[in-house]
Amino acid sequence: MTNREDALELHSRKPGKISIESAVDVESKEDLNLVYTPGVAEPCKEIAKDKDKAREYTTKGNLVAVVSDGSAVLGLGDIGPEASMPVMEGKCNLFKKFGNVDAFPLVLDTETSEEIIETVERTEPTLGGVNLEDISSPECFRIEEELKRRMDVPVFHDDQHGTAIVMLAALRNALEIVEKDLSDSRIVVLGAGASGIAVSNILLDAGAENIVPVDSSGILRTDEGNEYKQDLAERTQASQESGTLEDAIEGADVLIGLSTGGVVSKGMVSSMNKDSIVFACANPDPEIMPSEAKEAGAEIVATGRSDFDNQVNNSLAFPGVFRGALDAEASDIDEEMKLAASEAIRNFVEPRKDRIVPETLDSELAEEIAEKVREAA
Amino acid sequence: MTNREDALELHSRKPGKISIESAVDVESKEDLNLVYTPGVAEPCKEIAKDKDKAREYTTKGNLVAVVSDGSAVLGLGDIGPEASMPVMEGKCNLFKKFGNVDAFPLVLDTETSEEIIETVERTEPTLGGVNLEDISSPECFRIEEELKRRMDVPVFHDDQHGTAIVMLAALRNALEIVEKDLSDSRIVVLGAGASGIAVSNILLDAGAENIVPVDSSGILRTDEGNEYKQDLAERTQASQESGTLEDAIEGADVLIGLSTGGVVSKGMVSSMNKDSIVFACANPDPEIMPSEAKEAGAEIVATGRSDFDNQVNNSLAFPGVFRGALDAEASDIDEEMKLAASEAIRNFVEPRKDRIVPETLDSELAEEIAEKVREAA
Repeated sequence: MTNREDALELHSRKPGKISIESAVDVESKEDLNLVYTPGVAEPCKEIAKDKDKAREYTTKGNLVAVVSDGSAVLGLGDIGPEASMPVMEGKCNLFKKFGNVDAFPLVLDTETSEEIIETVERTEPTLGGVNLEDISSPECFRIEEELKRRMDVPVFHDDQHGTAIVMLAALRNALEIVEKDLSDSRIVVLGAGASGIAVSNILLDAGAENIVPVDSSGILRTDEGNEYKQDLAERTQASQESGTLEDAIEGADVLIGLSTGGVVSKGMVSSMNKDSIVFACANPDPEIMPSEAKEAGAEIVATGRSDFDNQVNNSLAFPGVFRGALDAEASDIDEEMKLAASEAIRNFVEPRKDRIVPETLDSELAEEIAEKVREAA
Repeated sequence: MTNREDALELHSRKPGKISIESAVDVESKEDLNLVYTPGVAEPCKEIAKDKDKAREYTTKGNLVAVVSDGSAVLGLGDIGPEASMPVMEGKCNLFKKFGNVDAFPLVLDTETSEEIIETVERTEPTLGGVNLEDISSPECFRIEEELKRRMDVPVFHDDQHGTAIVMLAALRNALEIVEKDLSDSRIVVLGAGASGIAVSNILLDAGAENIVPVDSSGILRTDEGNEYKQDLAERTQASQESGTLEDAIEGADVLIGLSTGGVVSKGMVSSMNKDSIVFACANPDPEIMPSEAKEAGAEIVATGRSDFDNQVNNSLAFPGVFRGALDAEASDIDEEMKLAASEAIRNFVEPRKDRIVPETLDSELAEEIAEKVREAA
């Protein structure tokens, strides 16, 4: 496992995990006259005549802000914007490495959802896209909805959609191995935060018809919890059922855990259908350890961790998704583009029980995703 | 002179004038585990305990936003944020090249000064400093004042202070050559926008006692114009005098033009004191062409242009000023730091009539400025 000292040492190296470089060298007075005044006035004038020329004459078309208020960081919770900065910088690093996207962190000291919305909205002239990150639920839903409505560049809350894209790919491959259909399978989604709700939504879009969403109070209800939970309950099997997590899991084909460590017992997994699939993706501690899940009869097991097989990690998706959306000059990343990205991830591997998703470091994956997302855009 | 086609060609090169790079390479799963989850949680936890650790574990301490609303761009006026982007990117390029500062553009779609203020204020957790740029006068004064008050990182409006720092250095060297004192000299400052007011202020701070500020209506008055002009009139010779530009210039030792092209005649320059100094810095067309000023008797002439001797250009100052302020972890760039920067620029050359300021591309200048700014901080 990762060593605390190694992580701190790496993060204390200068210049940090990203570096903003001069991409045009200034060696002579002539260079300076082109890069800065007076030459710089020429592209300014062209863009003043036609705003769309900003993509031609500036970095805007490849520039993404990784935005957070630090209210729901990893498993650490509401640690504030300053403390969320290492995550956003790490993301910017991976954006360049795998997607050739120029991304910078933008962590915000805000009090309300409206403050986040108006702040990000105002930065639109700078940006080709917005990656929202680690913003608490349910505020994240309205923030993303509003920004998508107000902005003409793609806005993508990675905790929701990155997770959903990868989860769908992993599930399709797992179902193929055990020869079950997505539409017939009983799928319990445990956790109704940002990722749980987004995963349920993409599964519905992909054709799943028997989803049972569950939170810490049991199967979601149409008359309890926030509006997003109630809405999801109405659109799924939860509207027909009630009960505990145990009740939901009994007879299920698939359990997708996006909640907290250790909440699933071996007995629960044993009560699932034959050839059961268990994705225990709580971080850092899974809902049930892979060895226990397998002892209890699970046929295919995945986690969010790099030290077990089948790491379901949203870093598989976001670099390629944004690469494709930016190349297409898309104004949004819609459901079709997400499904296309998921298919690209799914088809990137010949599925085996211990390899239902690609390796996180495969540099060709992002290109493959980008191509499919461009086509779908 | 600069060629329009060359400038457009350069600006259409990809990836643009800046590029955001991965500064830590991710080649193995172990690397990924340190740069991103789960290792990234360790610096997050350290910063959550002590916000100041953000400078140790992230890029924050070297990260500057170059902020504009595009309301007063170069000589082009209010062309909007998108069209101002090439200037901001050019600035970011020079920040890295000369100051090793990681700077990104942040152009804002805002309607009011308050919107700019609150937007920039909210980005503080991301930043080591803020460079304000090309914001119209007099709004720029209140925006900078408020941001300085509300933020704990340096906020620096380069059109004001960058210009002022370089202008003072140039003037001190010019006065040395003609053997006049700053305190005794009659100095006409033509233009009472952002740079004119800032130049007058730094001259006052440096000991000038006979400044006559003038705008397009003549010598400033204590009962006319915006509050910043009235305030400046009260603090200078303008409170004792009234009259036209001609009246102001007659008998002056120094004319500093920060207004518009062609407004100064040979006759006006002829009416100045012996060994007169004329800085005609309007861009792209100077208040009077250098050849005419010399014919009319000016002893030392400077402009803002690169195709004449003595280019008074704020790109001489800002990379070194921010380098010094960031190194010192300063919460502000105060008057003392600005005067120190100006002294560093002044002392960098052995002054001659045709070389009162350093060359813009001297890479050692920024280091020299940074050292003096650090000492003053």
